[in-house]
Amino acid sequence: MAAKMNPDLKKEREGASFDPEKITNLLYGGPDRVTSKRELESLALNDPDFQHEDLNFMSREQQYETQLKKSILVVQKQKELGIVDQMDLHSYSYNGVFQSMSGPFGLHTSMFLPTLRGQGTDEQKAKWLKMAEEYAIIGTYAQTEMGHGTFLRGLETTSTYDPQTQEFILNTPTLTGTKWWPGCLGKTSNYCVLMAQLYIHGKSYGPHPFMVQIRSLQDHKPLPGVTVGDIGPKFGYQGNDNGFLRFDNVRIPRDNMLMKYSRVEPDGTYVKPPSSKLAYGTMVRVRSMIVGEASESLSKAVTIAIRYSCVRRQSEMKPGHPEPQVLDYVTQQYKLFPFLAAAYAFVFASRTMIFVYFQSMAKISSGDITVLPELHALSSGLKSLSSWVMNAGIEECRMACGGHGYSHASGIPSIYMEHTPAATYEGENTVLMLQTARYLMKSYNQSMQGEKLADSVAYLSGVQPVPAAGRTRNVLDLGVLIEAYQHRAARLVHEAALQLRNERQAGKDQPDAWNAASVDLVKAAKAHSQYFVVKNFAGRLTDPALDSAAQAVLTRLCQLYALHGVVDNSGDFLEDDYLTGTDIRQARRHINALMAKLRPDAVALVDAFDFPDGILNSVLGRYDGNVYEHLLEWAKASPLNKTDVHESYHKYLKPFLEANRAKL
Amino acid sequence: MAAKMNPDLKKEREGASFDPEKITNLLYGGPDRVTSKRELESLALNDPDFQHEDLNFMSREQQYETQLKKSILVVQKQKELGIVDQMDLHSYSYNGVFQSMSGPFGLHTSMFLPTLRGQGTDEQKAKWLKMAEEYAIIGTYAQTEMGHGTFLRGLETTSTYDPQTQEFILNTPTLTGTKWWPGCLGKTSNYCVLMAQLYIHGKSYGPHPFMVQIRSLQDHKPLPGVTVGDIGPKFGYQGNDNGFLRFDNVRIPRDNMLMKYSRVEPDGTYVKPPSSKLAYGTMVRVRSMIVGEASESLSKAVTIAIRYSCVRRQSEMKPGHPEPQVLDYVTQQYKLFPFLAAAYAFVFASRTMIFVYFQSMAKISSGDITVLPELHALSSGLKSLSSWVMNAGIEECRMACGGHGYSHASGIPSIYMEHTPAATYEGENTVLMLQTARYLMKSYNQSMQGEKLADSVAYLSGVQPVPAAGRTRNVLDLGVLIEAYQHRAARLVHEAALQLRNERQAGKDQPDAWNAASVDLVKAAKAHSQYFVVKNFAGRLTDPALDSAAQAVLTRLCQLYALHGVVDNSGDFLEDDYLTGTDIRQARRHINALMAKLRPDAVALVDAFDFPDGILNSVLGRYDGNVYEHLLEWAKASPLNKTDVHESYHKYLKPFLEANRAKL
Repeated sequence: MAAKMNPDLKKEREGASFDPEKITNLLYGGPDRVTSKRELESLALNDPDFQHEDLNFMSREQQYETQLKKSILVVQKQKELGIVDQMDLHSYSYNGVFQSMSGPFGLHTSMFLPTLRGQGTDEQKAKWLKMAEEYAIIGTYAQTEMGHGTFLRGLETTSTYDPQTQEFILNTPTLTGTKWWPGCLGKTSNYCVLMAQLYIHGKSYGPHPFMVQIRSLQDHKPLPGVTVGDIGPKFGYQGNDNGFLRFDNVRIPRDNMLMKYSRVEPDGTYVKPPSSKLAYGTMVRVRSMIVGEASESLSKAVTIAIRYSCVRRQSEMKPGHPEPQVLDYVTQQYKLFPFLAAAYAFVFASRTMIFVYFQSMAKISSGDITVLPELHALSSGLKSLSSWVMNAGIEECRMACGGHGYSHASGIPSIYMEHTPAATYEGENTVLMLQTARYLMKSYNQSMQGEKLADSVAYLSGVQPVPAAGRTRNVLDLGVLIEAYQHRAARLVHEAALQLRNERQAGKDQPDAWNAASVDLVKAAKAHSQYFVVKNFAGRLTDPALDSAAQAVLTRLCQLYALHGVVDNSGDFLEDDYLTGTDIRQARRHINALMAKLRPDAVALVDAFDFPDGILNSVLGRYDGNVYEHLLEWAKASPLNKTDVHESYHKYLKPFLEANRAKL
Repeated sequence: MAAKMNPDLKKEREGASFDPEKITNLLYGGPDRVTSKRELESLALNDPDFQHEDLNFMSREQQYETQLKKSILVVQKQKELGIVDQMDLHSYSYNGVFQSMSGPFGLHTSMFLPTLRGQGTDEQKAKWLKMAEEYAIIGTYAQTEMGHGTFLRGLETTSTYDPQTQEFILNTPTLTGTKWWPGCLGKTSNYCVLMAQLYIHGKSYGPHPFMVQIRSLQDHKPLPGVTVGDIGPKFGYQGNDNGFLRFDNVRIPRDNMLMKYSRVEPDGTYVKPPSSKLAYGTMVRVRSMIVGEASESLSKAVTIAIRYSCVRRQSEMKPGHPEPQVLDYVTQQYKLFPFLAAAYAFVFASRTMIFVYFQSMAKISSGDITVLPELHALSSGLKSLSSWVMNAGIEECRMACGGHGYSHASGIPSIYMEHTPAATYEGENTVLMLQTARYLMKSYNQSMQGEKLADSVAYLSGVQPVPAAGRTRNVLDLGVLIEAYQHRAARLVHEAALQLRNERQAGKDQPDAWNAASVDLVKAAKAHSQYFVVKNFAGRLTDPALDSAAQAVLTRLCQLYALHGVVDNSGDFLEDDYLTGTDIRQARRHINALMAKLRPDAVALVDAFDFPDGILNSVLGRYDGNVYEHLLEWAKASPLNKTDVHESYHKYLKPFLEANRAKL
């Protein structure tokens, strides 16, 4: 086995115009952060306790069991190592131990604990939080039902208060009311926070959270009245026992309702929460994290595809010349470089999003909740946009690796299978885009009435005029590009508002008009989100962490991102003659020139993402580029090759062939 | 379990404006064909020998074994039933028995037998064909190597003639020369047709086919000098043992070279084939079949998503009203209807393609090979376009099913995993589009010199002029739309040609200029292929099999397809002002109106594809719409639910929880 670096990759790295470490530092928040990230990753990756054969070689049950075993170990080791910081946990556990694959304790830490902390009273926390933190109980968060996901008010599970006994009675009144999808529910959890419709004296009060034990602490069997199980295999998430859950007259004490905000008194008196908007915070946080996850997953796929495209040589561009690296084909660059740029664009967008989130939370906790609608609109739009782009991008990267991309050895199918649900969970993308659109319409109407708008939508107050015919523009200029994106977003918001008005004037009621205009509304919300991403990317180019070489290469990448979006959506810019056919042709020429300039820096730009091999988990994307020998090694280790002659030969093939031969 | 049809689906079917049977007849070539299709499908689907648990519940090894067992049975049963016609085999075996999932005899019938038949001499056929047809031997076609796929001339496996012994010596000189990917090679085949570089007296003659035994007929062990195995798990194709193969000085007799076209005489004299273009025929046939496969796979996904979107109810459109069917959301229609239209468009394109193929083959066998370049360009473009659209469409359908689409119960992930490789196999899509572009450039240059062009490119002779400003057009008119697509294709071909010339004039040599212009060349080839698909769809609307109701609904679908393509690529039509901003806005309004008209016919339009439940293999797409009860049944039957408490609890979870509890 070759220990040396593939000469093509070596040459790529030597030829880069900048030091990738500079960008790594920017991405992770400084040299200290990078050092601790690397230490924690390598601690996890080199720990013999976490070694196992490729998950792709295992049955689903084996995958679940493997991830369970690691989940237990990781709890113990994190404690020993004293890892508590979120970014450190991300490096050690999410990436280092699990390579971003889902496991059976995921919901315990991401939802069960935070909900207890956020919505339990002090007494409730005293009772359960320690137990949960110490993993004496394992819990999940049971909200989604078979029949209802994004639309919370439609949940059917009931929790009916019985003042006689001071208990809630839990029931699943219908088939569609079966809890469905909660992670870690099927086999692992013995507790859950249950979202159920609260009924008191026959009156409904909407969904509320309840702490419910579902399995015995003695033998892990489902408690009486509880039906619980795994929902079966999925596209990905095989290590996670997403489950179903039904209740048949299960009684829980009154104190099991999480009562920090709403309360039910012993006599059945319902006490309302102070503000119904407080729960938004968690949703915004989760959606900001999805933007980060999307950028990270896309970055991994792009790293694999770009490195492999420098190792892979194919075809004869010029007769008699050696086969070129496939990344030298302009069509290959056109597939990969815009997604490389998008990966960077969304890393920066997610960083900003998280910053804005903390800023807003500070305001909110000092009583100012006016920032919430803007924050919600921004996070919804970015979550949708980034997960859509991630989906398209990962698959483009896979196919750009040709046939080998389709093998699990490439690592890309697993990335896709594991992260594509981001487009449908935590709010289905189209539904979220329409929520962003609702905010845009409201802001637009406010601006029509002369009201002052929040920062991110202030541009809606005045649509940039279409420049006079014949004016020449430099579409390579980021200022010009940002203005063009702003104009497009403002125009599309304006057009969607017009369409809404027209539908109303044609006699439709508000909901029907909204529905009729919804395709245009989504388009406007997307354009608004894209404008934010472009502007935000450009804003990061002057970060003091960058030296001039790194700044130059990121500027090219930002220009490519913006220009590619213009060419890809050229109709939006041409429709009202804001840009001209000449501008678009210029944009195409600029893209070709930028790609040629970025070509020698492509490998360094993915190296800067700083994914060690153990985390990429890809034969094609190896740092040393020794792809082919490891492809063969990997195949040889796979289950069907345990014997030269598979047992099915003796069982089926041999008698068949012999009978056929005898007949000849 | 409910035996009745879901009331929503029942209402959909009662409300359709046309009889789906009329369209089914058109799709499958008349009532007789439909009857025999249904009989054969149900024969396979109801045969107890072919029943087994869901493949998604099995490990990869179990999947391979199950498909092997069925492959053997199907050979025997087809013989008993006398099924030989290609369409009948498609109904009985491909869809009925295998639900279009790959199996371990696939390459034997699709490549090994046809190659023996097509490239073997009469003596060779006498020797091997009967054995192969009777399955006394199982073979595959070993062409692709680790280092080379689409670029055939790059193959590294050598077959060196030794005149002394009149044998060929087979060798794998490098790691990258390892045969990689051939289906059914890893564990199943004992023979293969090997493509290897022929060497005689130290001179290379390019790739040629050789008949090679690789495993013993006694014990199935690899023969001396042969290393063979499975390439490991892939995204899909789990039932197929795609394999690797290496040779170390393996000797085969001279007669094992398939010599119908090229020959090697005993003394080593090489005799050239009469025409090197003859092998194109097979490639064209395979690519035409991929267009059909792409349309069929997309049709399945669309069937599932549209039926489920009528069963699924979600959210509150109007306060107090019942939750609407999700297909009533215009955004949902906008996701699904264009792909429904595309599925139809590609069915028709594939039918035409196959018809043209047979027509051309007739010409070719009468000595006229002038049709080959046109046929090759058309089939390459359509293969790429249809597989790209299929990929995007299947995933759009999956995500349009929300969370449940991600479950294997939906059936959509399997369709995707199994059919997405169509974009990279049998010629990588971008490489193929560039071959189409090459033909377009050649034709364009010929037209510049006043030469007559082949039918499908005759339009390149004159670019339609841009209409005078202010001229109003009815963009709903199919004639207007076809002209617009033609104009766009001609313009983009013209622009690509200009760019090529500019690059040459700027000093680049031909290969570099081609590479620099390649993004525009692909764009032109795509536009050419789309023009063909739109025109071809419109041409099928007057088929006498259709009554006026069926014709009306297909016309709407064709208009939607064409208009959606215009709006989706509006920049292409706006860039030279061929269409105006007003036209595009009109097109959007027409799309909304067409979707509203198509909405009541959506279920009938997917019913017309006539996929029985056993073939769709989807809980969400069931004909009776009883989705939720079967979702629960399906989950309960899955492996993790065999016991209430999984064994991993005793192994890992119990000791962990008890230790943590003890510490409290």
